[in-house]
Amino acid sequence: MSDGVLVLNAGSSSIKFALYQECADGGLAPQVHGQVEGLRSTAQLHIDTGGGDQVTEMPPGSDHESALQAVLDAVDRHLGGIEIRGVGHRIVHGGREHHAPAVIDEALLEALRELEPLAPLHQPHNLAAVAALMRTAPELPQVACFDTAFHRTQPAVAQRFALPREYEQRGVLRYGFHGLSYEYIAERLPAYDERAAAGRTVVAHLGSGASMCALHGGRSVATTMGFTALDGLPMGQRCGNLDPGVVLHLMRQEGLSADEIEALLYRRSGLLGVSGLSADMQVLLESDAPEAAEAVALFCYRAVREIGGLAAALGGLDALVFTAGIGEHAPTVRARILGALEWLGLRLDPQANSAGGPRITTADSPVSAWVVPTDEERIIAGHTEALLRG
Amino acid sequence: MSDGVLVLNAGSSSIKFALYQECADGGLAPQVHGQVEGLRSTAQLHIDTGGGDQVTEMPPGSDHESALQAVLDAVDRHLGGIEIRGVGHRIVHGGREHHAPAVIDEALLEALRELEPLAPLHQPHNLAAVAALMRTAPELPQVACFDTAFHRTQPAVAQRFALPREYEQRGVLRYGFHGLSYEYIAERLPAYDERAAAGRTVVAHLGSGASMCALHGGRSVATTMGFTALDGLPMGQRCGNLDPGVVLHLMRQEGLSADEIEALLYRRSGLLGVSGLSADMQVLLESDAPEAAEAVALFCYRAVREIGGLAAALGGLDALVFTAGIGEHAPTVRARILGALEWLGLRLDPQANSAGGPRITTADSPVSAWVVPTDEERIIAGHTEALLRG
Repeated sequence: MSDGVLVLNAGSSSIKFALYQECADGGLAPQVHGQVEGLRSTAQLHIDTGGGDQVTEMPPGSDHESALQAVLDAVDRHLGGIEIRGVGHRIVHGGREHHAPAVIDEALLEALRELEPLAPLHQPHNLAAVAALMRTAPELPQVACFDTAFHRTQPAVAQRFALPREYEQRGVLRYGFHGLSYEYIAERLPAYDERAAAGRTVVAHLGSGASMCALHGGRSVATTMGFTALDGLPMGQRCGNLDPGVVLHLMRQEGLSADEIEALLYRRSGLLGVSGLSADMQVLLESDAPEAAEAVALFCYRAVREIGGLAAALGGLDALVFTAGIGEHAPTVRARILGALEWLGLRLDPQANSAGGPRITTADSPVSAWVVPTDEERIIAGHTEALLRG
Repeated sequence: MSDGVLVLNAGSSSIKFALYQECADGGLAPQVHGQVEGLRSTAQLHIDTGGGDQVTEMPPGSDHESALQAVLDAVDRHLGGIEIRGVGHRIVHGGREHHAPAVIDEALLEALRELEPLAPLHQPHNLAAVAALMRTAPELPQVACFDTAFHRTQPAVAQRFALPREYEQRGVLRYGFHGLSYEYIAERLPAYDERAAAGRTVVAHLGSGASMCALHGGRSVATTMGFTALDGLPMGQRCGNLDPGVVLHLMRQEGLSADEIEALLYRRSGLLGVSGLSADMQVLLESDAPEAAEAVALFCYRAVREIGGLAAALGGLDALVFTAGIGEHAPTVRARILGALEWLGLRLDPQANSAGGPRITTADSPVSAWVVPTDEERIIAGHTEALLRG
């Protein structure tokens, strides 16, 4: 019998999970991972125990509670002698108070519920899973790992909007997100580039959600996402940064409601909106349509501008790291971004880039660029194990 | 008897004017300038004929039409043998069609009225002055000079939001503003720095409204203001760029109407909002309040990040130009911005900066920085004269 940690990431239409076993050397070994997809529509349970994806159909319209039970049952069938010591959750919003993961009790759960208006699309689902486990397994310790926490090291000036002070006091701040991914990259970076790890690095987390983070000595000093996960880079379906005057225009001239604007900016914009074809970068890269090319060009252009802005926040650049779906798997996008950044001292190595790195700049490139796969679940498992051991 | 050109800039609460005389050498000499301030409240006419500001009280509550007549009468009294051949107007919005100044006829006036929803705070007032002159002096040629036109050289990728294509077709684009100021600087730049004029320059127009423009060979390739004059840098009272999710939050959680959000973002934010004290940079620089220091710090920080982003759009930087009220008259702000940009090759010359330039970097600075006073009225006068001569 050995100990293990279960990681849960409960979103609006899916619950992702991963089981880690604590090894004799103190490390964590992934055992089982998977997800329930299509909640409230045609739900499926996917599970991978190391031999590929196994799919089980679930009753149509399954809700979060039944999905969570299905996940626990599935994990239970594959425990193989592992005893779950605790559950680590990805919680999107920790507000301004939470700089680090925390063991969840009733008081913390209540405090996190008060943040739901700041992340209405994610936080309620994250917390619903916590509450459900509190009811069904009250003895099981749970740990909250926040997507915002890593950015709380930023100087105040990087977290502030130019709004009246009372809004800041009421929590309207640039929180930043993808913090668990950036924390993982910051941990791994010394193994790739010691100078960059001690110095100035921009990490480009480019997935269907996309943001960038400026790391100085491994700590976040600036990021492109702001108060919500809508800001910064254009994404698969999200607009990224947008003149607030456009939102006023949508209200007044186009007569859209808040719900309609939210649907427009979160689900119909970004790569999907510009291309009119797909939110999937790979689909667009393979398309001959000029609209697809325009969407890819806009994505790369905005990435280049944000890297310039983050380099300015860092006072220069030692390294650039690509991670997440697009960052890890789209060499064309990496090549286009690096091609526009030669002035910053980045010299692409096309062969290394095609091969997926890890280093994708030439040996004599003054600034290095890397492909580093991210692993947010491992960060959550590590924090959970450490807090429970603690 | 010699010919002259009258320049008008009719805003929401003021009408600025300037009279230029055409010289024998083909140049234009400023003769008289001034403005009516405080329209619809305690209106005053200011006029300067070279010997300082003369102030005349106007009937309280004076409207645009009576103010315009007062301007024409005042100019008339100071014509000194100049015959006005035409009137040049600053028109904030030329939409996507207008790349250059144009003589105004009924059809153009109608077309420009259709753009009013894109600039509701400025365009109606600009056009009201045109229409009033059409009625009272139908024989007088009028020329429209657009604040957006200079940016129409930008690549499509710099003008596009990551929104569904139909919004772009309906005119939701990054138009950019302060174009007449940037055009003036682009014209003057060769006299300061030939290499920069042919190369890559960021112009920082820092006034109570503030934006930046990336010039390549004197043409605009990118700018920080977007669809409206709300985007980009924080300003005296405007927020600058803002996560669109904040606007949704203001609608939903704070229950604000479109009018209330507009008032908040246009009039209560920026330096005024962050400091809680003043929208005036000079007042904040002289204040001991920590809130004043925070507002100045945010202004400089965001300026630095935008310069990094624009340098990335240019593929590097040859020169940086400061202009407009803060840019020309706040050496402290210039020094702080340059201090954070040493990594880009900018080396401040503190004495030259205190003295107001024009060059404020050391002779061995790889990238040069300059203070160049802007003159939008002269650009309008020049275009008007050229089109009428045409």
